Amino acid sequence: MLIVDSLTDQTSFLLDTIDSPCDLRRLSLPQMELLAQELRETIITTVAETGGHLAPSLGVVELTMALHYVFDTPRDRLVWDVGHQAYAHKLLTGRRDRFTTLRQYKGLSGFPKRGESEYDTVEAGHSSTSISYGLGIAAAKAIQADPGKVVAIIGDGSMTAGMAFEGLNHAGDLGRNLVVILNDNEMSISRNVGALSSFLSRKMTGKTIRRLRDHIEERLMALSSVGENILTVLRKSEESLKGFFTPGMLFEALKFKYIGPIPGHELEDLIATLENVRDHNHGPVLVHVITTKGKGYKPAETHPGDYHGIGPFDVTTGAPKKNKNAAISYTKVFGETLCRLARQDKRVVAITAAMPGGTGLLPFSAEFPERFFDVGIAEQHAVTFAAGLALEGLRPFFAVYSSFMQRAVDQLIHDVCLPNLPVTIALDRSGVVGADGPTHHGVFDLSFLSFIPNLTVMAPKDENELQQMLFTALHHSGPVVLRYPRGSGEGVALEATFQRLKIGKGELLREGGDVLLLPLGNRVYPALTAAARLAEQGVNAAVINPRFLKPLDTELITSWAAQTGHVVTIEDNSALSGFGSGVLQLLNERGLHLPVKILGYADSFVEHGPQATLWNNAGIDADGIVRSVQKLLRK
Amino acid sequence: MLIVDSLTDQTSFLLDTIDSPCDLRRLSLPQMELLAQELRETIITTVAETGGHLAPSLGVVELTMALHYVFDTPRDRLVWDVGHQAYAHKLLTGRRDRFTTLRQYKGLSGFPKRGESEYDTVEAGHSSTSISYGLGIAAAKAIQADPGKVVAIIGDGSMTAGMAFEGLNHAGDLGRNLVVILNDNEMSISRNVGALSSFLSRKMTGKTIRRLRDHIEERLMALSSVGENILTVLRKSEESLKGFFTPGMLFEALKFKYIGPIPGHELEDLIATLENVRDHNHGPVLVHVITTKGKGYKPAETHPGDYHGIGPFDVTTGAPKKNKNAAISYTKVFGETLCRLARQDKRVVAITAAMPGGTGLLPFSAEFPERFFDVGIAEQHAVTFAAGLALEGLRPFFAVYSSFMQRAVDQLIHDVCLPNLPVTIALDRSGVVGADGPTHHGVFDLSFLSFIPNLTVMAPKDENELQQMLFTALHHSGPVVLRYPRGSGEGVALEATFQRLKIGKGELLREGGDVLLLPLGNRVYPALTAAARLAEQGVNAAVINPRFLKPLDTELITSWAAQTGHVVTIEDNSALSGFGSGVLQLLNERGLHLPVKILGYADSFVEHGPQATLWNNAGIDADGIVRSVQKLLRK
Repeated sequence: MLIVDSLTDQTSFLLDTIDSPCDLRRLSLPQMELLAQELRETIITTVAETGGHLAPSLGVVELTMALHYVFDTPRDRLVWDVGHQAYAHKLLTGRRDRFTTLRQYKGLSGFPKRGESEYDTVEAGHSSTSISYGLGIAAAKAIQADPGKVVAIIGDGSMTAGMAFEGLNHAGDLGRNLVVILNDNEMSISRNVGALSSFLSRKMTGKTIRRLRDHIEERLMALSSVGENILTVLRKSEESLKGFFTPGMLFEALKFKYIGPIPGHELEDLIATLENVRDHNHGPVLVHVITTKGKGYKPAETHPGDYHGIGPFDVTTGAPKKNKNAAISYTKVFGETLCRLARQDKRVVAITAAMPGGTGLLPFSAEFPERFFDVGIAEQHAVTFAAGLALEGLRPFFAVYSSFMQRAVDQLIHDVCLPNLPVTIALDRSGVVGADGPTHHGVFDLSFLSFIPNLTVMAPKDENELQQMLFTALHHSGPVVLRYPRGSGEGVALEATFQRLKIGKGELLREGGDVLLLPLGNRVYPALTAAARLAEQGVNAAVINPRFLKPLDTELITSWAAQTGHVVTIEDNSALSGFGSGVLQLLNERGLHLPVKILGYADSFVEHGPQATLWNNAGIDADGIVRSVQKLLRK
Repeated sequence: MLIVDSLTDQTSFLLDTIDSPCDLRRLSLPQMELLAQELRETIITTVAETGGHLAPSLGVVELTMALHYVFDTPRDRLVWDVGHQAYAHKLLTGRRDRFTTLRQYKGLSGFPKRGESEYDTVEAGHSSTSISYGLGIAAAKAIQADPGKVVAIIGDGSMTAGMAFEGLNHAGDLGRNLVVILNDNEMSISRNVGALSSFLSRKMTGKTIRRLRDHIEERLMALSSVGENILTVLRKSEESLKGFFTPGMLFEALKFKYIGPIPGHELEDLIATLENVRDHNHGPVLVHVITTKGKGYKPAETHPGDYHGIGPFDVTTGAPKKNKNAAISYTKVFGETLCRLARQDKRVVAITAAMPGGTGLLPFSAEFPERFFDVGIAEQHAVTFAAGLALEGLRPFFAVYSSFMQRAVDQLIHDVCLPNLPVTIALDRSGVVGADGPTHHGVFDLSFLSFIPNLTVMAPKDENELQQMLFTALHHSGPVVLRYPRGSGEGVALEATFQRLKIGKGELLREGGDVLLLPLGNRVYPALTAAARLAEQGVNAAVINPRFLKPLDTELITSWAAQTGHVVTIEDNSALSGFGSGVLQLLNERGLHLPVKILGYADSFVEHGPQATLWNNAGIDADGIVRSVQKLLRK
């Protein structure tokens, strides 16, 4: 590999001398260029072991160096949008010794984190928050007459989110000194989406400016004399002028000073530009920087989408180190099932918010391009757009990660559930997701879905039940949310024919008179394991797969709760206001005032780490369930 | 009053002959102009009795007529953004006989409602959903080869919301036949906000075009010959060109065909323009219509903000019919208290999302203009902007209606509570709001706030407790949500000095051994009334004001629950996943398996009607509490 080769002769690394950005500021330009290579090598070799957001971080190595070189961090504030591009930032801000612990349990977070470093202005993880954060910081600095600078670094993909527009619109109005760096790699997580995107790529340097010149020149040439008729010419030109935009014009319309586009891998240019920007104290500035995602690592440059977020891989070939024995993932079952359903039923349409790969919709998009919609990073719009499709008789499926669905709670309540429209939300990455940590865990969805009228909420115990639930959702006349976890299914066979499940009906998986286990979704198999172990100890546990959070299977649950007298609920979600809470409320309403042990996450944010570790910590794996039952029965 | 006078001579009304838009389409232009006057008169005289959104509806009378005249409704779909401007639409679509029941209990909704009419495409109430809905409908029509048209009518204020931008961006990309009418009255609910707004008002017809002409002319005059040096001139002009935008250019950049601006009260122009638009079948079109908010009613034209949403008023003078005995409103206490706090503490800053009047922040904005921020209809940005302010040591208070806060759930979780920042959300209009109905009721906030780590949630029993809670929030080091209802306080005196309440501590208001009443916020006084009535019947109810949803006062609640053995919780919120649910979970955890009656709204959307009626229906007023206690003890 090119970069690694070029550095193997060195006996010492410059990076070893960089304890903070102060050390960076002492380097010469050639030294900085060498350091850039070392940063790339460190990032590539580490992420090859740990997995992580490789391509975004490689794309901003020089930009990160230039920012820390020019700005007086941490007094000046860098706000990284999403934060998945902050590996070089971490390496330059005193964390290189711990960098091999990246995304490991108890190790460095894959995102900026205030607890880790004073250089991390905010936690990050979700997109498009940096302009709002940055503007708040800038406004506070203005009020307090603090001369410190604020820089928000945001990708072109994140610019498609409405929140970024809200921030720009307010920033232009307020006029505070905010620097926004538009990190434009013409590629967010996958292909970029939206009219804005094609607009950004229309650089004034190219064909457009030539066309503009030709156009006006032609008209002027046709005049016998200049002066008198110039107004007519311009009047006629007005219409044509409309087509000749530069990205700068858009941002200047929003009252930003626009600088760019600047090549994003030339340190000298970057530093000179940022020094000018730093000394501009007259309102918001947008610096348009063109970067290459995955820069410096050929496989990532060639396939930036595949190397956006990646598991461990072989550095030489770029090939992922696959877990060979893993069963098919829920995501894949979802994507393939939706294709099968779409072949049978013309009403099926699919929507993603800039995650066609992550949500498993690539096969669908290839087979049904006319029925597939990638709306950009725009969860709010996605949900209401789905509502519009449903109004005309279609059956939209919006596939989205649980934690990103937090962005569209109002749209689900107000635009889908109030008019009771048949929209299905396929909620991937529900429960803990592992190394991406608290910003990406989907541990609140059962809570924020539990109270919405007209909504049906399902959770499959395995991949076969997922496909049947998708079929059931398609034939249900109201809104549905279907939550399923990150990762592999249980390895069960997929039934060849679709079957509709009865809405609000669970299934009794095991009889038993001592305790009732009520595990939701991916907790069903661990509960069955627990029940088997308990049986060895002479404890007979009944196990019900409730299938539905909403509506609950009142009859089945109350009758077995009454028979056993003890209930343990288990969910891969906060223990507050979710499934267990609903079961408790149901039993209380029915006059069953029994001890109910509600297993789920405590009232704090869940750290990053392997799913199995996090399940174990929360006591929601088989071990934890056994322990809870023992404790409950001991009382 | 002008309009009423002009019509008093008529013996019959044209409007009486309009049963559907078909009847409208038969009228001549002069007849239509007369009808416009009749519509205005009907709207003004009705709203004077019922209260309602007067100014928005008066502004679109001609536009509404032209739309129904030109488009084949209901086959063609009109999507009214927010929906507060749809009174003329209701009058023209078969609802004139019921129009006097507007916003009355069991009467017509103040917003479009699918159940009311096939002409109402969707429910509405929250802003900026129309482009997303409309695009979904248009996409579905394209898939199904349905030639029907879709028109989204959106105000310039609603355009400041990110969701509108997400919709425009996707619409431009998708290229379906969607008509967006930008109803530009340079005024949303109050003064319009944001860089976009000043951009919209920069019409190319004015000074800007003259400056552009002068500029180029001057340069051309300086040349000795045309031709050779024209490229240099144009190169130099490029920079200056950036300043010369028209609103059209922005929308054309987003790949919309732009038409306008069109005067919005000239029926002939409107009809001609819309006929052209109707027959344009080449992708999205934006029609920029200039209207006057409150058009035709002088008081509303002069003070459109005051007449946006208004209670009953005197038609002749425009003066509101005030409820003379009403105590000071929670909103007013909030606004005045925040001013007092800001005088004492320089860290206090205030934020509104386009509702400075509705949230009581006008006095604050006048007294502390540098510490006041109106961010436009942009709740997402507002919350994260507040987080940025808090990062720099300020203490931001974001005042927002409960149902609009549903838009910023992710920002509260991810941007405020994860980094544990001292942001206070002042949640006005929590609980049912009355005539505005299901889209505006704030009956879900206790549920969507109940599970968020690091968050403190308070609810005052009266206006004095509100001021003390604001003081407490200011001195708390983490995020706080403070929920209070629409309308008047209890009429209690405001203590002259501020006192900090202990976080997570409730107060015992009444001792009693038979049952524990746990009313939250505005349910405390009704519970005290109920307790007094129960005492007359020999039932001794203890009453605790818990003050906090999160954290709950574990000790106080469990000890009195144990003593009484029966618990009734009361909240102006869904009975699911809110306060009662939390109390039940607490008692269960502490081994108290008692009957807990959870009073709140059932699992369906709450209709519109007077607050007292809705409280009574839900059994959460004094009568209902008495009944529930009797029933609970009878068991």
